[in-house]
Amino acid sequence: MSETSDSVTAHEGHGYVGHKEDLLKRLRRAEGQVRGVHRMVEEDQYCLDILTQVSAATKALERVALVLLDDHLSHCVATAAEEGGEVAAAKLQEASAAIARLVR
Amino acid sequence: MSETSDSVTAHEGHGYVGHKEDLLKRLRRAEGQVRGVHRMVEEDQYCLDILTQVSAATKALERVALVLLDDHLSHCVATAAEEGGEVAAAKLQEASAAIARLVR
Amino acid sequence: MSETSDSVTAHEGHGYVGHKEDLLKRLRRAEGQVRGVHRMVEEDQYCLDILTQVSAATKALERVALVLLDDHLSHCVATAAEEGGEVAAAKLQEASAAIARLVR
Amino acid sequence: MSETSDSVTAHEGHGYVGHKEDLLKRLRRAEGQVRGVHRMVEEDQYCLDILTQVSAATKALERVALVLLDDHLSHCVATAAEEGGEVAAAKLQEASAAIARLVR
Repeated sequence: MSETSDSVTAHEGHGYVGHKEDLLKRLRRAEGQVRGVHRMVEEDQYCLDILTQVSAATKALERVALVLLDDHLSHCVATAAEEGGEVAAAKLQEASAAIARLVR
Repeated sequence: MSETSDSVTAHEGHGYVGHKEDLLKRLRRAEGQVRGVHRMVEEDQYCLDILTQVSAATKALERVALVLLDDHLSHCVATAAEEGGEVAAAKLQEASAAIARLVR
Repeated sequence: MSETSDSVTAHEGHGYVGHKEDLLKRLRRAEGQVRGVHRMVEEDQYCLDILTQVSAATKALERVALVLLDDHLSHCVATAAEEGGEVAAAKLQEASAAIARLVR
Repeated sequence: MSETSDSVTAHEGHGYVGHKEDLLKRLRRAEGQVRGVHRMVEEDQYCLDILTQVSAATKALERVALVLLDDHLSHCVATAAEEGGEVAAAKLQEASAAIARLVR
């Protein structure tokens, strides 16, 4: 994985490539937060303090999801829309389904 | 931390102690999912596939939050309510605030 | 309904009775907001302006849900917990299920 | 729809126009559900039964929001994207902000 990271060649068309370092940093932080929750449970800390930490991790992941979706709309979907036709319609359909899953 | 983990003595009053192994397993899985998202971003995978994985991690954390809250209500809050008075009222107030943060 | 409204006698044990006027006011406002959304769609207003109004109505209903849940915990559940036993456990179980539905 | 809908001509380009009757029907139902919640509070019904009804109304409004957003993406945003340039970028930015508010 080491040599592929920061190598944008493979899928350089992806919208989030410009935000890649930002996303990776957010994800490392989220991973640390989840590990923190694990440690708090292991140490039998107070339920509501753990809940606060769970909320922080969830919010961090929601932020990642919004950045990804934002990039997807302004890149993949916009590119497809310029081409128009069935591919564009399918891309928009796919993006809408992803938004619906996010909102629940 | 090593010697305290699985030692329930320290705070054995916490409601989630009975669910501790279940919670720790869920958290290890959530941590793995967040690490998976990190790898997908690093490998420039498709935005919406990454989003699906982010949603899985978020749902896993929400489930952890509900287990913690459930345990908190049926243990800490119930114990306080039996005693009644101001302590019980404060505990319920605190639990309500945690629920509000969870619902947003 | 006319003669029962504001007559708290029927179910005076309910926790929200103290917040009844506040809840009714919030619900009238939410109803007005939903009617506003209906009018905006009828008048073909701009999608995102309508979305903003939909969000306002949803937030108003979430606030109502939290007030109801809060009252339920601090009244019905607390009362059951004081009595203890199976009834209390069932009440807590029921409240937890309601919270899970709210969080989704 | 012809004479009632306060002049459909004005903004007939809006994406949701094709779903207008569906949206209006959903909104009438949501309004009825909110009115039902109001009546349940007035009649001092059981907190958790009211909560269930509040959830139904919230879900109905979320569905309306997703239809509006879907129509907005596949119509307004797609149209702007075909034209490209700053207008398209602004439209996508605006749509992303609306999604973020929806997800919270």
